[in-house]
Amino acid sequence: MAHRLEPLLNPRSIAIIGASDNPDRIGGMPIDLLTRFGYAGNIYPVNPKYDAVFGLPCLSCIEDVPENIDLAVLAIGAADVTAMLARCHARGIRAAIVYAAGFAEAGEAGAALQATMEAFVHESGMMVAGPNCMGFANLNSHVYTAFASVFRTAPAQNERGRVSLLTQSGNVCAAVFAIARELGVPFSHFINTGNEACVDFSAYLEYLAQDKDTEVVVGYIEELRNGQRFIEAASACAEADKPLILYKAGETDKGREAVRSHTSALAGDQEIYRAAFAQLNVIECQDFAQMAQMAELARYRDRAAGRRVAIVSISGAVGAILADKCIGNGLHVPTLPQALQDTLRAGIPDYGMVSNPVDVTGNVVNDPGFVRAALTALATTDAIDAIIVYAPGYLLDRMTDDLVVTAAEHRRLIVAVDTGRARRRDDLRKHGIPVMTDIGMTVAALAPFLRWHERRACKPWRALAARGNAKAGKAETAPISPTCNEYEARQYLSAHGVPGVAERVARSADETVAAAGALGYPVVLKVLSADVPHKTEAGGVRLNLKNADAVRDAYATILASVDRHVPHARIDGMLVQAMAAGGVELIVGATRDPVFGPALTVGLGGVLTELYRDVSHRLLPINADTAREMLRELKAFPLLDGFRNAPLRDVDAACDAIAAFSRAVMELGPAAAEVEINPLVVRERGQGVAMLDSLIVANAV
Amino acid sequence: MAHRLEPLLNPRSIAIIGASDNPDRIGGMPIDLLTRFGYAGNIYPVNPKYDAVFGLPCLSCIEDVPENIDLAVLAIGAADVTAMLARCHARGIRAAIVYAAGFAEAGEAGAALQATMEAFVHESGMMVAGPNCMGFANLNSHVYTAFASVFRTAPAQNERGRVSLLTQSGNVCAAVFAIARELGVPFSHFINTGNEACVDFSAYLEYLAQDKDTEVVVGYIEELRNGQRFIEAASACAEADKPLILYKAGETDKGREAVRSHTSALAGDQEIYRAAFAQLNVIECQDFAQMAQMAELARYRDRAAGRRVAIVSISGAVGAILADKCIGNGLHVPTLPQALQDTLRAGIPDYGMVSNPVDVTGNVVNDPGFVRAALTALATTDAIDAIIVYAPGYLLDRMTDDLVVTAAEHRRLIVAVDTGRARRRDDLRKHGIPVMTDIGMTVAALAPFLRWHERRACKPWRALAARGNAKAGKAETAPISPTCNEYEARQYLSAHGVPGVAERVARSADETVAAAGALGYPVVLKVLSADVPHKTEAGGVRLNLKNADAVRDAYATILASVDRHVPHARIDGMLVQAMAAGGVELIVGATRDPVFGPALTVGLGGVLTELYRDVSHRLLPINADTAREMLRELKAFPLLDGFRNAPLRDVDAACDAIAAFSRAVMELGPAAAEVEINPLVVRERGQGVAMLDSLIVANAV
Repeated sequence: MAHRLEPLLNPRSIAIIGASDNPDRIGGMPIDLLTRFGYAGNIYPVNPKYDAVFGLPCLSCIEDVPENIDLAVLAIGAADVTAMLARCHARGIRAAIVYAAGFAEAGEAGAALQATMEAFVHESGMMVAGPNCMGFANLNSHVYTAFASVFRTAPAQNERGRVSLLTQSGNVCAAVFAIARELGVPFSHFINTGNEACVDFSAYLEYLAQDKDTEVVVGYIEELRNGQRFIEAASACAEADKPLILYKAGETDKGREAVRSHTSALAGDQEIYRAAFAQLNVIECQDFAQMAQMAELARYRDRAAGRRVAIVSISGAVGAILADKCIGNGLHVPTLPQALQDTLRAGIPDYGMVSNPVDVTGNVVNDPGFVRAALTALATTDAIDAIIVYAPGYLLDRMTDDLVVTAAEHRRLIVAVDTGRARRRDDLRKHGIPVMTDIGMTVAALAPFLRWHERRACKPWRALAARGNAKAGKAETAPISPTCNEYEARQYLSAHGVPGVAERVARSADETVAAAGALGYPVVLKVLSADVPHKTEAGGVRLNLKNADAVRDAYATILASVDRHVPHARIDGMLVQAMAAGGVELIVGATRDPVFGPALTVGLGGVLTELYRDVSHRLLPINADTAREMLRELKAFPLLDGFRNAPLRDVDAACDAIAAFSRAVMELGPAAAEVEINPLVVRERGQGVAMLDSLIVANAV
Repeated sequence: MAHRLEPLLNPRSIAIIGASDNPDRIGGMPIDLLTRFGYAGNIYPVNPKYDAVFGLPCLSCIEDVPENIDLAVLAIGAADVTAMLARCHARGIRAAIVYAAGFAEAGEAGAALQATMEAFVHESGMMVAGPNCMGFANLNSHVYTAFASVFRTAPAQNERGRVSLLTQSGNVCAAVFAIARELGVPFSHFINTGNEACVDFSAYLEYLAQDKDTEVVVGYIEELRNGQRFIEAASACAEADKPLILYKAGETDKGREAVRSHTSALAGDQEIYRAAFAQLNVIECQDFAQMAQMAELARYRDRAAGRRVAIVSISGAVGAILADKCIGNGLHVPTLPQALQDTLRAGIPDYGMVSNPVDVTGNVVNDPGFVRAALTALATTDAIDAIIVYAPGYLLDRMTDDLVVTAAEHRRLIVAVDTGRARRRDDLRKHGIPVMTDIGMTVAALAPFLRWHERRACKPWRALAARGNAKAGKAETAPISPTCNEYEARQYLSAHGVPGVAERVARSADETVAAAGALGYPVVLKVLSADVPHKTEAGGVRLNLKNADAVRDAYATILASVDRHVPHARIDGMLVQAMAAGGVELIVGATRDPVFGPALTVGLGGVLTELYRDVSHRLLPINADTAREMLRELKAFPLLDGFRNAPLRDVDAACDAIAAFSRAVMELGPAAAEVEINPLVVRERGQGVAMLDSLIVANAV
């Protein structure tokens, strides 16, 4: 069955309402493009002012269209849009693209116009793209419903496209298309979403995930409207083994402010977007040129690859530079095994390096037999996963035959870098070898692509894709009131498997002393009150109390101090905790991101974590393996791992506790706005962890 | 008087020894290039095998050259080089370029060949470039002494060049030249230095600093042979207001290893290189494409500019992206003053942003008068220093007249960004407006260039340039033995103005108790011995001793423990210090970099500084202003500055102490390998600083 977006993205017939005979006007450009590039379906220009445009008869009104067509393109002003949609619907037209700006992005009046339009769309069931969008192109079907002059200026595409472009900005769509076409990337779909009144980014992404013409998706996001839906669409891309390359704008406050001024979506946390991308194996990028280069590279996804690269260079300097850049971008440049080095040394003079990077020197020019032997050795060793070959201009030309044969015989990815003007670039590309032209960009594009390669088999996105259902089921049966106090929060987390410390609640001085005696000295006292969130500042905490007198004294002091700081606080009692042994302190926190829902943050306790922003984020749920990844991502991880002869810490127990925290948070569902353990003390290896303080904050809804 | 490198870089006549008639061989390519591009001087090919090459008579030996010529190019094997240099010298030839590899970069035999050659050059006074270099080009004089095919494949240069390229790798020289020529950058000199047996990078840089054809220098460094000489040459560039753009390879261990395998210089610390570049106002870059783009931008150095930029974009999305990138690269994107926003609002619809970035929307197309008014307002406001205009293709064309008029009327730098194919790019460039074509690269090149602009007036390089003489004068009169103990080190630093704590040296238990009584309790005891560098680990330190008994007890414990850990340690006595009040702890250390000499490192004390690499480096000497810059560079600086309601610390006193440390280190001269204060305690504002521990390590020489 055809996908519901088929009439928008692959229409069999099109009306252009507000048609013009000027190819530079929005009502003329799509007709010019459709006729210029040979669209095979029927085209119906509609405008009472013309009899004919671009050699086609022009109808005076949409009611005159002689068939039930797939798509209407509305090149008319915002104020007239909804009425025209109704007429299209009445005429049996299934889908429409609305170019007009002046809707939700343009103040209150525009928002009202958009609301009216949305109501009509909802009621009619029509499929409407935009408003405020630049339209689409389906390059394989020659459907051009975009007013984008880039199709006239970019290099023409003669081969079948396999890369689809999906952006929330028309200008970005055009800019990336232009760069990528210069590189020769062949496109399938060109989609920009505009205001997404009725069809959002994730809906198009879902279409592309199942589109047989699309093997790679390149996208640009300002704000997603629905994180869960994105998770499902991105997971569908991953399941279909289609690389999804995304640029998310809004890295800085200023950038977010600028994005927000022209989008109407709720802003998600940029770090949570980044975490989501990592978990969904989305290839994140930060630049248009990088997007285009990645699209080019991703076309070679069938080659075997991973993060360990061999660098072969005719220049020692460029070899060193490539090594710097690879390592700086998270790739590995392993020293080659001695036997392989010996093989290479047979053809490389003393002053060329063979350990990796491999500096073949000018030698390649004189000894083509050696090139074949060296490439074969590198294509078959277990020590690496991919090969970068730097040889500019005619030097690459001379290696081309050997590269082509090697690529035919072995599946390993080989990337050629030519900063000159090699004549045989196309030969290489045709035979499975991408050719890059800039050294920095080669690594900037290759490194994320090779990370994608490593993760494509382990399918980390599956747990996330499933969470939509799991979460919905539990939301109504939250097993604890989110307005619980600290003790109850800890009991709840503890019941889910996060180890706590021995503790009791006491309601009087005598009970407090008795509890301390039962727990064993020294103890900690903490006031128990949902009205006193900042206990320490209110004088509500006393540490290291060594005997009954000290406890009795502290009891009185705490109550007096809290009463002074928070006069009418409701006091639930006094919490008596065994004083825990020291260790490395972690903060483990969950929040609800407005886009992606429950998300986890893990970091080291203390003030420097904040200054150094040394935290790791993930969407929930996660398991202990992911918890370990998160801890290892922390720059401070060595503190858990024996840094400078410090004891090894119980990382296994910490991972189990974080996974248990994940289960507890998922079970709480949307009722809790925030759940936090601060600190989770990580003791020496074998001695476990302990949550000393914890908190559940109810959702304000 | 002509510079001593003139015969190498601007010869009036040239012999090519080992000439060939094949334009692709190293003995043929320079002759092909010289004749092809119209070199005006005499060319003498030398090779007994030919009668003529490229239409020129070919001499059978160098002795047959009929005049005393400037330059011989040696396209012969390494083994024959020195003998041929001697023959050239005998024939009155002043300078030579040696292409051959197989010298210092190629094991012991090569090193011996190079030593022989160096001895001859030293004795004869001949000026010899290389060996192992690709040769030069002086594009304005049409001198091509390089075997570099890039001159045949890169776009031809028809205008006079003002940018010089100076690299330690021939391949890098060619690669950057190729990219920059595609951008239209016109070159003056093309220089690569090879093994630098007799003429090093800094010597060429000195030449370019005074060369009237060179306005911008773009360079690539693997290792400098002489840091002080580089400091002087780079300072000369700065004094001449010539931007110096440098790429230093060896960012990672692997990259350094690869660089070292083909250079013979001592490796300097990469962070110290970076510090030197910052102090010399060198524009650092990390990519060939970035180098080329910076070279293009630097041609517009006469425009007024600074770090506060206004972004004008026809696309809200691209405006947001540019803001993200500018801020991410250290530029400022200030909110524009309200009056200016009002001016802009007059021509921009409600849904376009006017605060900065300025989203002019499609409006520019319809209202060219507004464009002029908006550009004039931005070119004259005090709120910003530079303007970025994003308009792709025909949109930029439509703005070109207004941009040209604005640039003619105002000196402020305007940078145009065209991701389309605007037809009028050259118009803009001719009228002082650089045109960039990639959004990421625009900011990557612009940000360092604008930082250079900000520092060109404040001349931070002058103190450094002067230090060569200052240092040499003091080296022999070091006022303290560098084998001094901790107490003597502190006395020395204290005498130079670094505040210490009250302390005394005692030689017996009784003297120790008496000293403690005189200083006042509590006190700290530390064993005083040059043989016990790790005092704490050896049990040689006891803190917070509150009375005489505790001191007497600690005295015995320390001596026993030290004796156990370091059996035959020579004990100079016991150090008794007043226990200092707490504060933020800094580490202040000086080392001698093998390339640049005395260098300073400042960071926060404690184990996390190491994990987060949160330190700041400078070449010495520095003053208190630079010390403040260094502290502000620390990510942990907020801890000194009232972070989270912590008290403000005495940053002024810390800066004075660091400047005093600088003076003390410079006076010690090369005798000291390392000087360190750890910690320097920074108390609350007004209460000063105190050096608690310090160390001077003698140079092993």
